[in-house]
Amino acid sequence: MTPYIAPGLHLLIDFWGANHLQNMELIEQTMREAAAVCGATVLEIKLHSFGENSGITGVAILAESHISIHTWPETGYIALDVFMCGKCDPNQAIPVFTSAFKPKESQVQSYLRGIQN
Amino acid sequence: MTPYIAPGLHLLIDFWGANHLQNMELIEQTMREAAAVCGATVLEIKLHSFGENSGITGVAILAESHISIHTWPETGYIALDVFMCGKCDPNQAIPVFTSAFKPKESQVQSYLRGIQN
Repeated sequence: MTPYIAPGLHLLIDFWGANHLQNMELIEQTMREAAAVCGATVLEIKLHSFGENSGITGVAILAESHISIHTWPETGYIALDVFMCGKCDPNQAIPVFTSAFKPKESQVQSYLRGIQN
Repeated sequence: MTPYIAPGLHLLIDFWGANHLQNMELIEQTMREAAAVCGATVLEIKLHSFGENSGITGVAILAESHISIHTWPETGYIALDVFMCGKCDPNQAIPVFTSAFKPKESQVQSYLRGIQN
């Protein structure tokens, strides 16, 4: 089958030994900054805290798809994903996240979505 | 480095030649059903329509992470992702999505998140 132009790039970003996993304000600000550097437009950000010693789940709904974050303070692990269509480049978000959460180890996997195999 | 127990499984699901790409009600209902069959708890669902001939972006924020959907009616393409931690199995959501959107072609990629390489 003929492939067609991909809707976009989807990054799965894993951080280990990260910081600020319970800081709602920093997480929201970081998501806004990440969207901005990629040239994306934030429609809405929703954050949910699971309690004093627990993690935070957050989603930024973008005109160009989404950013999500899930934190596990008990292990210092953060799972992020960034999916952006159009002319936005989600790779631009990586240094923003790294700078904010200062992980000891990180991994980025990227997938071009929408191209038919 | 020693791996630790993974927070969860992340599925990237691509549908081509799919149906109901502008049906907000069906999309919300399908996200709720998908969460339920996986044993996940929906905290909130946010859907955004980009207009009469455009797609829909939706996110279900779960106690166990998230489900997202982005539709492109102009090409019949849907990008879904399902990330669930704990005992939930996101694979259970696949037949729910397939049954609702009836894609001609589909692809599922799955990634175990949180295990350190």
